[in-house]
Amino acid sequence: MCVLGLGLIGGSLLRAAVAAGREAFGYNRSVDGAQGARFDGFAATTDLTEALQWAADRNALIVLAVPMPAVSLLLGHVKDVAADCPLTDVISVKGAVLDEVRRAGLLDRYVGGHPMAGTAHSGWTAGDARLFTGAPWVLGVDEHVDAHVWAQVMDLALDCHAVVVPAKSDEHDAAAASISHLPHLLAEALAVTAGEVPLAFALAAGSFRDGTRVAATAPDLVRAMCEANTAQLLPALDRALELLNQARDSLAQKSSVAELVEAGHAARIRYDSFSRPQIVTIAIGEENWREELAAAGRAGGVIRSALPVLGSRG
Amino acid sequence: MCVLGLGLIGGSLLRAAVAAGREAFGYNRSVDGAQGARFDGFAATTDLTEALQWAADRNALIVLAVPMPAVSLLLGHVKDVAADCPLTDVISVKGAVLDEVRRAGLLDRYVGGHPMAGTAHSGWTAGDARLFTGAPWVLGVDEHVDAHVWAQVMDLALDCHAVVVPAKSDEHDAAAASISHLPHLLAEALAVTAGEVPLAFALAAGSFRDGTRVAATAPDLVRAMCEANTAQLLPALDRALELLNQARDSLAQKSSVAELVEAGHAARIRYDSFSRPQIVTIAIGEENWREELAAAGRAGGVIRSALPVLGSRG
Repeated sequence: MCVLGLGLIGGSLLRAAVAAGREAFGYNRSVDGAQGARFDGFAATTDLTEALQWAADRNALIVLAVPMPAVSLLLGHVKDVAADCPLTDVISVKGAVLDEVRRAGLLDRYVGGHPMAGTAHSGWTAGDARLFTGAPWVLGVDEHVDAHVWAQVMDLALDCHAVVVPAKSDEHDAAAASISHLPHLLAEALAVTAGEVPLAFALAAGSFRDGTRVAATAPDLVRAMCEANTAQLLPALDRALELLNQARDSLAQKSSVAELVEAGHAARIRYDSFSRPQIVTIAIGEENWREELAAAGRAGGVIRSALPVLGSRG
Repeated sequence: MCVLGLGLIGGSLLRAAVAAGREAFGYNRSVDGAQGARFDGFAATTDLTEALQWAADRNALIVLAVPMPAVSLLLGHVKDVAADCPLTDVISVKGAVLDEVRRAGLLDRYVGGHPMAGTAHSGWTAGDARLFTGAPWVLGVDEHVDAHVWAQVMDLALDCHAVVVPAKSDEHDAAAASISHLPHLLAEALAVTAGEVPLAFALAAGSFRDGTRVAATAPDLVRAMCEANTAQLLPALDRALELLNQARDSLAQKSSVAELVEAGHAARIRYDSFSRPQIVTIAIGEENWREELAAAGRAGGVIRSALPVLGSRG
């Protein structure tokens, strides 16, 4: 496996893959990341062509683990040096990556991925082989995906002790907008609002710390994921604004926030009791396998151990 | 010390006070709480008059630990049975309690308090003697407060291993709106928004869990604290809405959330480096002691060990 980008996610992936007994090679644009990886005993380079040639020689799975703005350039090099390798990514938006992969002419080897794990820290040193343990790892089941490539990426996610959630790219992006990108914007707004009140930081406790934890994430990472998902983030933000405006009017007019508070509590309780049935009856490559996996994922289903593979392009 | 109300905060306080070697007696309106406390070895009753008579016999410090809507009724009984006892509270809004205490004619014995600690759980069984360890515990330094009562409440907070933050009631409420009540409304809005997106709960991870943790709090508790602080919560909510609307327009028009994300990150980083100098040079009861403590609290100052007391009504 060849990981392009050794930040928090890519660096954790390199560690997790090697810990699972895989042969793996890393590339990082800056010297710091590659040197850090080598210092910790991993194979890594700052030479992109060397990394891609290594992958091409082995038909190794290539994993894009760079911020969205770097994807296009990277895909051009993949196309030039390792066009036949199976290809995935760990980027937090899926529609935008899919578009870039299509534009690069690499769609038939590509299965989108997104491990839903992270911390507020970044860079090689923040990585952890156990970062993905128990985390949902989304795998794209869009119409184009090949069963054998899909199975390879599934195996990688399971090797990292994640649970695989199959999903269509556009559904993933709508969900990610509401459970990941919107929380970032709310956290930023909360931090700014409190920061303007003299005594606020002196009194801040758990609810403020929790509510602003993700505001400590590097701004360029937050911008990259939010801005690459503009089309799905806008309706989520609009819905949150609508709810907050209603609460604002209700508070001003009748000193009540009952409606929002009761609906929010009910939603959070539903989340706490959301069940995660294991997907066991679908074979990768059987008729309608992509649709069936998408439906199972939508219902909360997860893959905890490898599903059988029937054939390619089923 | 006599604690009226044995929920999460009152129950934790009874435990912490006894652990510190204090004689303490608890009252709870429902049988569950009082029986739970007695079962765990504490002195407690469901007879309010018995509890207040116990306090009056000892001139014991009375602590109101009930939701805001129950305060008025309780103060009537305090006035009837134990009007001379020093009085404090642990309620999350200070202006509204102050108004009720003034109306009950008990202002000269009252010092408002608010330990900034909590969990999403409630009731006697959720309590913990260590709940206040390291937490900021606000003590009111409004114009009316008596030095000796203030010192008694300070000693209680320090016995519970909290750090005391002196503050004016209105400044406390403005700060609490931005760091406690606003986070609750944002969490509720986030939970509702995500709950409407099919795949969202299936993918929810850290940022959603953190961002909605306080939405698991019982709705009546959230309503009680938000609605009792309407006057201060409205401007905080309006400011957050303004920031989110600006981000919404920037996202729609130029696919950028740069301004909000950078301001939010900067505020959160300022919070992480906010220093908490110890207040050591002010004597309770000296000239301008209330103003000096308010200024020190505003600057982040905390009391970690008891300040000296010069005299009453200084």
